[in-house]
Amino acid sequence: MIKVGIIGVGTVGSSVVRILQKNKDIITARAGKEIVPLIGVVKNLNKERNLDIKLSDNIDDILDDESIDIVVELMGGVDEAFSVVKKALAKGKSVVTANKAMLAYHRYELQQSSKKLPIGFEASVAGGIPIIKALREGLSANHIISIKGIMNGTCNYMLTKMMSEGAEFDEILQEAKDLGYAEADPSFDIGGFDAAHKLLILASIAYGIDAKPEDILIEGIEDINSEDIFFANEFGYSIKLLTIAKKIGESVELRVHPTLINKNEMIAKVDGVMNGVSVVGDCVGETMYYGPGAGGDATASAVIADIIDIAREGNNSPMLGFKKALEHGKLKLKNADEISTKYYVRVEVEDKIGVLSQISNILGEQNISINSFLQKQSKNAKFATLLFSTHQCFEKDIQKALKKISKCEFVKQFPAMIRIEE
Amino acid sequence: MIKVGIIGVGTVGSSVVRILQKNKDIITARAGKEIVPLIGVVKNLNKERNLDIKLSDNIDDILDDESIDIVVELMGGVDEAFSVVKKALAKGKSVVTANKAMLAYHRYELQQSSKKLPIGFEASVAGGIPIIKALREGLSANHIISIKGIMNGTCNYMLTKMMSEGAEFDEILQEAKDLGYAEADPSFDIGGFDAAHKLLILASIAYGIDAKPEDILIEGIEDINSEDIFFANEFGYSIKLLTIAKKIGESVELRVHPTLINKNEMIAKVDGVMNGVSVVGDCVGETMYYGPGAGGDATASAVIADIIDIAREGNNSPMLGFKKALEHGKLKLKNADEISTKYYVRVEVEDKIGVLSQISNILGEQNISINSFLQKQSKNAKFATLLFSTHQCFEKDIQKALKKISKCEFVKQFPAMIRIEE
Repeated sequence: MIKVGIIGVGTVGSSVVRILQKNKDIITARAGKEIVPLIGVVKNLNKERNLDIKLSDNIDDILDDESIDIVVELMGGVDEAFSVVKKALAKGKSVVTANKAMLAYHRYELQQSSKKLPIGFEASVAGGIPIIKALREGLSANHIISIKGIMNGTCNYMLTKMMSEGAEFDEILQEAKDLGYAEADPSFDIGGFDAAHKLLILASIAYGIDAKPEDILIEGIEDINSEDIFFANEFGYSIKLLTIAKKIGESVELRVHPTLINKNEMIAKVDGVMNGVSVVGDCVGETMYYGPGAGGDATASAVIADIIDIAREGNNSPMLGFKKALEHGKLKLKNADEISTKYYVRVEVEDKIGVLSQISNILGEQNISINSFLQKQSKNAKFATLLFSTHQCFEKDIQKALKKISKCEFVKQFPAMIRIEE
Repeated sequence: MIKVGIIGVGTVGSSVVRILQKNKDIITARAGKEIVPLIGVVKNLNKERNLDIKLSDNIDDILDDESIDIVVELMGGVDEAFSVVKKALAKGKSVVTANKAMLAYHRYELQQSSKKLPIGFEASVAGGIPIIKALREGLSANHIISIKGIMNGTCNYMLTKMMSEGAEFDEILQEAKDLGYAEADPSFDIGGFDAAHKLLILASIAYGIDAKPEDILIEGIEDINSEDIFFANEFGYSIKLLTIAKKIGESVELRVHPTLINKNEMIAKVDGVMNGVSVVGDCVGETMYYGPGAGGDATASAVIADIIDIAREGNNSPMLGFKKALEHGKLKLKNADEISTKYYVRVEVEDKIGVLSQISNILGEQNISINSFLQKQSKNAKFATLLFSTHQCFEKDIQKALKKISKCEFVKQFPAMIRIEE
């Protein structure tokens, strides 16, 4: 029998308890042992929960209980959770966590302090999709060429709705809040930070890269409007908040931002609250993983898979996928301004003669050439909106060009830019 | 150091050798040990191979070599391969195999004779997609409600082409042969047998069901013509050769046949030679796995992932996913005639009064009602082609109805039928 203590019994924690009980028969058959949720730790003992498990408001009731084999950490937060998990390991308990924020900062220290104890964290990335397992074990023969992920359901729901309805951001955000797809304070999701945490975890497994959120380019979807959607539809693109990891030579690009991608790509077909991760390996080519990225039961599915792996004594894979360092040394994280890609730009200008030639002069000075172009009348008839995409150029050059364009007297506000991925 | 002997050095075997050498650095870092392909066994030693490995034409050179830790079986066939693999296990060697035909018949005996030795078979289903791992480990908390797979690239290439070009079967088959997507004798692929082998393997992991190919419904794509494609396009369907596993109560449906599915479903978007497997679990909901189902390097990616798992001492998961039997007993395989679904029917009839009413009478007698209907002029003006879909009904009833319809004097040949999945 395997005994489990659960720290944090909210949506996911409750699902873990319920599914361990409801699916006991099949879980026991698969694990070879009965798995029993023994204690749940909550902040407020008085809240009605309707769960068949002993509750406590003291974490030590789990940490000090010698009969508990596995600690499931679902408390959230970074440093306190990290300290709890380290204590559990020190007491010889295995750990399963869904805490992406903690892992975004402390995954390497955690791997270090785990020694031989298993740490499961499948639920930390893309909810119910077993992407950690796929990347760490299923694709282990490959140099990973790229990862492109849709890993935030809130953003994907909103962008899908904006694409299909042509509605504006604020309107859809309100709708997402009403439906429970967006938090009351949605900035962590729509700002790209949640997706960035997940990307950092995948990047460690793919590349052995130890980067923190502040080391990488993170942009949210707040500035996308219906003109961008119009351009995307016109030129056969979808707009997605993509997490991108790419190996180029001996360096790795990591970035999270709204992205225009061709509608025919498999990853572009991941709509609504669903998540998807496309991984290109040098032997396998492209594989893609699709499923629910959030929700109590879907996330619990991944948490329990980790518990079963531990019960099976099932998985001695190294936590972050590497048993030892690469012989030729670590891969290097690329600076954001070294990125080279295609760009889409939206700029609102006074509708007068000479504007277009001034803008193309500025672009030309930075060696940027225009690929496609659309001009639309703005609501205010004195203004026009220019929408264009560029051929491939460097991030630092487009940034310089945008700054110069923003200083032209005929430009209303700083131009909006979305990167294109092809 | 882990030493590997490879039996069968064709397309996949050559890729295994090449990738183990080319990606040695990353594979060693991930596995913690160097993995060395030591001997390859081939039928014809005189064939030019351009590989840096010792070759032999004697399987015993691998089986009797005590330094070899892992035997990779890529020889194909059923009984001889099974006997070789058993010998390797008896000599204490781990086994990695891509041989779906052998597994379709002998997977349970193999699990039995493996004792504690690991047997990897990720490459046997859907090539480079780590679907075995996802199902056996990633989704282990779930009762699997259904599996819908596109697991034969030849069929999917042909059906995709027929859908997009409206061309006839024979024409596309020739094209597939010319491109190397179809074998000279393609009957094993287009008859659905290859996909059925893969389905049986997945069904064991999902349900613990020990079925053989002859126990399940297998139909190929040979009879699909441009009228069916026309109907599908008209009503928003895609035609795919689907492998279907479904748990209904305590019984399981297993079947392989061409299927009409809604174009909006994620699995319907898997086009060309690519494979995809959609799995619905009772906690996680739908997840889907997409990637190349064949090809030397993609299949080798899965073979090597299994080798790395073994080198990591990485995986003690039970071969077929169950450490012990379900307490309430095994699930039962459903008879084909108990299937209940919607159907599409094509029937060519003499173009005269009363035909339609006779056909709907026959359907009505079997409690089958028509859902949508199209009538087209045949090339021969005396005949018309009726295309219709039914509401949900039983397989045995539609089969009876089709038999009766085929006996009407105005019917040219036995009606064609395709099952609809919704």
